[in-house]
Amino acid sequence: MTGNCTSCRPERWVGQSVPRVEDARHLTGRGMFVDDIERPWILYAAFVRSPFSAAHIQEVSVEEALKVPGVETVITAADLDGFPGIKPLLHRPEFVPVEMPLLCGREVRHAGEPVALVLADCPHVAEDGAEAVVVKYERREPVVSLDGALAEGAPRVHEEMKDNVLLDVSDPENPELDKIFEQAPVVVAATFDTGRLSAVPMEGRACLAEWDAREDTLILYTSTQVPFIVRTAVADALKLPQQRVRVIAPDVGGGFGQKCVVSREELLVSIAALRLGRPVKWTEDRQENLTAAFHGHEQQYKASAAFDEKGKLLGLKVDILCDVGAYSCYPFTCGVEPLMAATEMPGVYQLEHYQSRARAVATNKAPMAPYRGVSRPQFTFVMERLMQKAAKRLGLDAVEIRRRNLPSLEDFPYESPTGVVYDPGSYVESLEKCAKVFNFSTWKERQEKARRAGRLIGIGFSCFGERTGYGTRAFALRKMAITPGADNARLRMDPSGNVTLTVGTCGHGQGHQTTLAQIAADELGLPLEKIVVRQGDTEAAPYGWGTFASRSAVVGGGATKRAAALLAERIKEVASYLLEAASRDLEIKEGRVFVVGSPDRYVTVEQVARAVHLEAHLLPEGEAGMLDASAGFDPPGTFSNATHGVVVEVDPETGDVRIERYVVVEDCGIMINPMIVEGQVRGGVAQGIAAALYEQFVYDDEGQPVTSTLMDYLVPTTTEIPPIEILHLETPCEYTETGAKGMGEGGTMGAPAAVASAVADALSHLDIEIDHLPITPDRLRAAIKESRAYGGSAK
Amino acid sequence: MTGNCTSCRPERWVGQSVPRVEDARHLTGRGMFVDDIERPWILYAAFVRSPFSAAHIQEVSVEEALKVPGVETVITAADLDGFPGIKPLLHRPEFVPVEMPLLCGREVRHAGEPVALVLADCPHVAEDGAEAVVVKYERREPVVSLDGALAEGAPRVHEEMKDNVLLDVSDPENPELDKIFEQAPVVVAATFDTGRLSAVPMEGRACLAEWDAREDTLILYTSTQVPFIVRTAVADALKLPQQRVRVIAPDVGGGFGQKCVVSREELLVSIAALRLGRPVKWTEDRQENLTAAFHGHEQQYKASAAFDEKGKLLGLKVDILCDVGAYSCYPFTCGVEPLMAATEMPGVYQLEHYQSRARAVATNKAPMAPYRGVSRPQFTFVMERLMQKAAKRLGLDAVEIRRRNLPSLEDFPYESPTGVVYDPGSYVESLEKCAKVFNFSTWKERQEKARRAGRLIGIGFSCFGERTGYGTRAFALRKMAITPGADNARLRMDPSGNVTLTVGTCGHGQGHQTTLAQIAADELGLPLEKIVVRQGDTEAAPYGWGTFASRSAVVGGGATKRAAALLAERIKEVASYLLEAASRDLEIKEGRVFVVGSPDRYVTVEQVARAVHLEAHLLPEGEAGMLDASAGFDPPGTFSNATHGVVVEVDPETGDVRIERYVVVEDCGIMINPMIVEGQVRGGVAQGIAAALYEQFVYDDEGQPVTSTLMDYLVPTTTEIPPIEILHLETPCEYTETGAKGMGEGGTMGAPAAVASAVADALSHLDIEIDHLPITPDRLRAAIKESRAYGGSAK
Repeated sequence: MTGNCTSCRPERWVGQSVPRVEDARHLTGRGMFVDDIERPWILYAAFVRSPFSAAHIQEVSVEEALKVPGVETVITAADLDGFPGIKPLLHRPEFVPVEMPLLCGREVRHAGEPVALVLADCPHVAEDGAEAVVVKYERREPVVSLDGALAEGAPRVHEEMKDNVLLDVSDPENPELDKIFEQAPVVVAATFDTGRLSAVPMEGRACLAEWDAREDTLILYTSTQVPFIVRTAVADALKLPQQRVRVIAPDVGGGFGQKCVVSREELLVSIAALRLGRPVKWTEDRQENLTAAFHGHEQQYKASAAFDEKGKLLGLKVDILCDVGAYSCYPFTCGVEPLMAATEMPGVYQLEHYQSRARAVATNKAPMAPYRGVSRPQFTFVMERLMQKAAKRLGLDAVEIRRRNLPSLEDFPYESPTGVVYDPGSYVESLEKCAKVFNFSTWKERQEKARRAGRLIGIGFSCFGERTGYGTRAFALRKMAITPGADNARLRMDPSGNVTLTVGTCGHGQGHQTTLAQIAADELGLPLEKIVVRQGDTEAAPYGWGTFASRSAVVGGGATKRAAALLAERIKEVASYLLEAASRDLEIKEGRVFVVGSPDRYVTVEQVARAVHLEAHLLPEGEAGMLDASAGFDPPGTFSNATHGVVVEVDPETGDVRIERYVVVEDCGIMINPMIVEGQVRGGVAQGIAAALYEQFVYDDEGQPVTSTLMDYLVPTTTEIPPIEILHLETPCEYTETGAKGMGEGGTMGAPAAVASAVADALSHLDIEIDHLPITPDRLRAAIKESRAYGGSAK
Repeated sequence: MTGNCTSCRPERWVGQSVPRVEDARHLTGRGMFVDDIERPWILYAAFVRSPFSAAHIQEVSVEEALKVPGVETVITAADLDGFPGIKPLLHRPEFVPVEMPLLCGREVRHAGEPVALVLADCPHVAEDGAEAVVVKYERREPVVSLDGALAEGAPRVHEEMKDNVLLDVSDPENPELDKIFEQAPVVVAATFDTGRLSAVPMEGRACLAEWDAREDTLILYTSTQVPFIVRTAVADALKLPQQRVRVIAPDVGGGFGQKCVVSREELLVSIAALRLGRPVKWTEDRQENLTAAFHGHEQQYKASAAFDEKGKLLGLKVDILCDVGAYSCYPFTCGVEPLMAATEMPGVYQLEHYQSRARAVATNKAPMAPYRGVSRPQFTFVMERLMQKAAKRLGLDAVEIRRRNLPSLEDFPYESPTGVVYDPGSYVESLEKCAKVFNFSTWKERQEKARRAGRLIGIGFSCFGERTGYGTRAFALRKMAITPGADNARLRMDPSGNVTLTVGTCGHGQGHQTTLAQIAADELGLPLEKIVVRQGDTEAAPYGWGTFASRSAVVGGGATKRAAALLAERIKEVASYLLEAASRDLEIKEGRVFVVGSPDRYVTVEQVARAVHLEAHLLPEGEAGMLDASAGFDPPGTFSNATHGVVVEVDPETGDVRIERYVVVEDCGIMINPMIVEGQVRGGVAQGIAAALYEQFVYDDEGQPVTSTLMDYLVPTTTEIPPIEILHLETPCEYTETGAKGMGEGGTMGAPAAVASAVADALSHLDIEIDHLPITPDRLRAAIKESRAYGGSAK
């Protein structure tokens, strides 16, 4: 990977764009995903899924399926007596906990819900068996939109509920804010909505469960971001002690939040393996993933903002609706989107007065789970659009209005009206830097010139802070019924002086096996290749909640650094005996423990490791045995920040939006591996551009998914996604141990707002507002046609 | 296993004969031994082994073998360039390190040595392939006995050596001792020898190696007592970092020392798997186990002892020869038997003056490894025989002479002339108790009466201390080049309040999964079934040297207790927040944390576990995250003790020895599980009786093994082994954390001496000495016939 010359071996590993150690196996086909695991005597699972979005089940007949040669058995809801559904909780009176059944027995509530599980010797036979299961449905009227769900006399997704609202939290009346709105020189208001999205990980969901008869333990290999959470859910469902359930996430081909919740398929496959005493594997196909896995981001904001005459934001009111589908996800519940939006909506634009109402609304669609960014792409879009509307009213340019509202360094720590505390970031600096790249001061001239030439170009910016490193405090704020404490890391040196680092976080493509090793290598003074990172196995890893919400670099990285520091101390202690020098006078560099100032007095770390494990006679009694250390870390949360800038060109005839240039100025504190940071930014921006322009999961009026293949659900390719230019600022975080801030979701958060602003800017002379995502060509074409101001002049 | 009623749920688990949790899987066929593991695309290994004890190899031709359909490849020494042999070290100038080649290339030094390794798709084809390998040998004159090896001009086992002595350690000249011998009223002297033994575990050696391409790690499943030691050897051989080698001991069907060393087969199978990229499995057959695994216990003692007129032992001189076969074992070296004998020989009979010489002598036989008891069965036999000879000379009975030499409680700590320190034990008490069982005061009458009836009955006793719990100090004393420090235990509570205990010791039939759980359950105040013990996987277990030398109850048990105490403290800390009470006022009982004195104020341990892992909002910040604790323990070593007593009857016509009654009065301190203690005693006594009367591994004059099946190597059955009566005394050890002393080898140590003494007693009127083990019928018959005093009168 790296040679031994000085240029290959940096003084510090953190900060270096070290090639990812994961890539060696992935690029040579040696990765191991769940579907790569085979077992003798295995059974393959296929699900019978409801074709309807809302129906009573009258009868499930499995006779014909059991006749299919190779079908071992069929499990229906009737076989699951004693296995309750998944029921998440929030400590909020406004929350209605509804149970998600493992298999539907009486009701189906969205198209794609599982009704039966067929197990066969071969995956194809299992599918044949699933087709042979006969289910009689009595269709009901479905709820397929927010408006429809909230309408008077609307049908109810859950008949036992009084309406379709699963959570309704609102701030108290605020007469002061009302007064601000009455008196403000500028008030802008609009209704915004954003399209339903699916995460589309390269690898769909998949799991393989087997019963280890020797250990009386269920082993579940699953493509998950949260093995310990899955363990808890499986153990609870199977009524096993948690130590009798071992969850292993091998290589995971992406998650984006869809795999940070527990799926009923994981529980069902586990139940089947336990019952049948045979390994059971299920690998989701793309259609299942799109229709039966978790969605997100379908939201509506009725927002209004009051500004003073200089463009300073005075107050904000918002009514947030989240279409959460038919059920709550576990453990985050359907509150995850509305609560995130309500709490963090005002964002980093400084503000004193804020009032929100946020609701989770049930519909007959696939349930919602956290999806990269969780509400922040949406409210960032809303905030930036409000800013731009105000700027237009006030005659301010896009940079100036933001500059007037963003906090400067002296404003930190900045506490938002909802009590969220922002640590220092380069909000203004990143905006200025981004504007400079675009030569923004001359933008108007360029745009005018283009318009005169019949071309519609626009520039857009978005500025945002990304709360990362979620620990206890952030979770407690949400009043979740289950909340994590510290995540943990353990380092263990072997007798040859190499280190195995295990962590409770569970990277699934982010390169943690590289970045966490970089942190440990610096702390231990060891070459990078001496550190191996292992994760994802509940039996091997120390406890942790897993990888989601951009928490791993902060939480896992902080725990790693703490544990590595402890191990380094222990190494020095042992070396002090071998060197006959005080431990405090020692330093570890490049695998050697030196007496400071005496380059010739050293022992190698290998010698230390060997002495501890194999040569106790070299050490005082009690000093030998094992070299390991573990530590937990539970940060208060930190904010990274970025400004995105984009120039687009709109084709007025086709409604197509082409991105001419995309620039990100990001600040995630200390970068552990700039290459990986940039990879995360690029992927996130691509996903954000997709949300802005391409992707939308559409149901028809009957609740039928109409975008259930990748021919319909438009994941952009390299043709659509432009090169992303990335510039960095580094405002180290003071309390994350490493100085790093998380940054995995930022790209997704900034892009929709920036692209929408740019499209709006391109069409500003036509008075077209861009308040709906995605900005599809048909919508845009229609808007342009409708625009009275247009009159066909722009080409 | 146990119910919930009070009688099933004892106040303390330690001290209870809890049924072994291991038995559930073993009795239902759910155990997993190495040979139970299958892998796709596996290769099976068979070894070509030398039929000669000493020969030059002129040529190895594999052509015909490669033609056997299904043979994949054949590996010979020529293919192993770059893989040195196994070379153990002692920090002693008197030690000659000789290398044990992985495969013989130029020389073979014992019959059964591996010359080539054949790999095939099927184990039977592999054996066919092995038969088709043609090896041309030029035979050399072998060395097959101690006398032969030490004779002037003897051929040398290793040509590069000046003679056949691999280790020669002796105490300095001792004029004072010489004077004692000159002046002593009684001096007894004799030459004793003991037969060569093989451990005969139910499961022979076996291993399966596979290369994990995802982790770049070699996984070696092997039937071993010392997974971490094997890891070190394999990693060194393969030049891999130790973290890239994972050794797993699944269920192991007995070891008795034969599996506490590294075998070249383990290394060869690992090399093959690495080279071929395919799993490779080798399962030894019984003949291989008997001829090519490790032997032990073939020793000769020239000993003389000086007594005063009252039978008090004044001085002891001994010259010890150990036939160690062709090589040193790793890591213990061929010094393990001579050094153990020289250091501990004087035993617990109090003595001031002692002089020894001990030699490890190479012969053309299978190499020696530690075998249950390591020299202690031999020198106990010698000491007891010397005692009996002296008693006869002095007209003292067997009990009286021992009583006069054993230490009483006020004599402890007793330091032997070699510096070995004995902690308090019930040496005299156990002797008295044992004698009482036999009604010893009337023994002479009974014996005379029997003799008059033509029956030869005899009684024999043996008294001994068993040094156990070997840690750093004991190993350092041996000057081994590699020595362990503390062994470690880790306890981890899961969110449901169950505990997984992992330890570095590696039980292989001793019931550690039960006994260690008992220790932890008491310390944690939890029901036994809440504790699961896992061991044997270098990736999962904390570091430790493994299970041998009766060390696990002391070392692993001590570490377990320490770690459990730490975890209990942590549980109380967390509970103190939930109960709003001070941690010091809490106690854990039956899975609940109580406020002392308030039986109604409690939280369950489950609640504590759930709060820590899943409900951080219930605890102050920083208190949640993980519940685990680990600790190491490195005891100074302790002595358990016992007296064995046996009555035998000798058939003067057949020379057969029948055991009429066998009594053990043992004291291993606090018994963790009396049932398991008794199982260990019974097994050990059976093995000791075998050494006294039945088992002997015999080579002919050409070094050909002539006892290479269980038809020839006489492992006794229940027909030969009588019921063993076991009585207990408990002298707790003050510094082993649990009060327990190890006791796994004692049975083996006491039995040969007791049986030999009894046989000698039966024949005392015939002046027949029993100085050679085993006491075979032919030897005994011959001796009886030769006895002039006999004259056929005894029947």
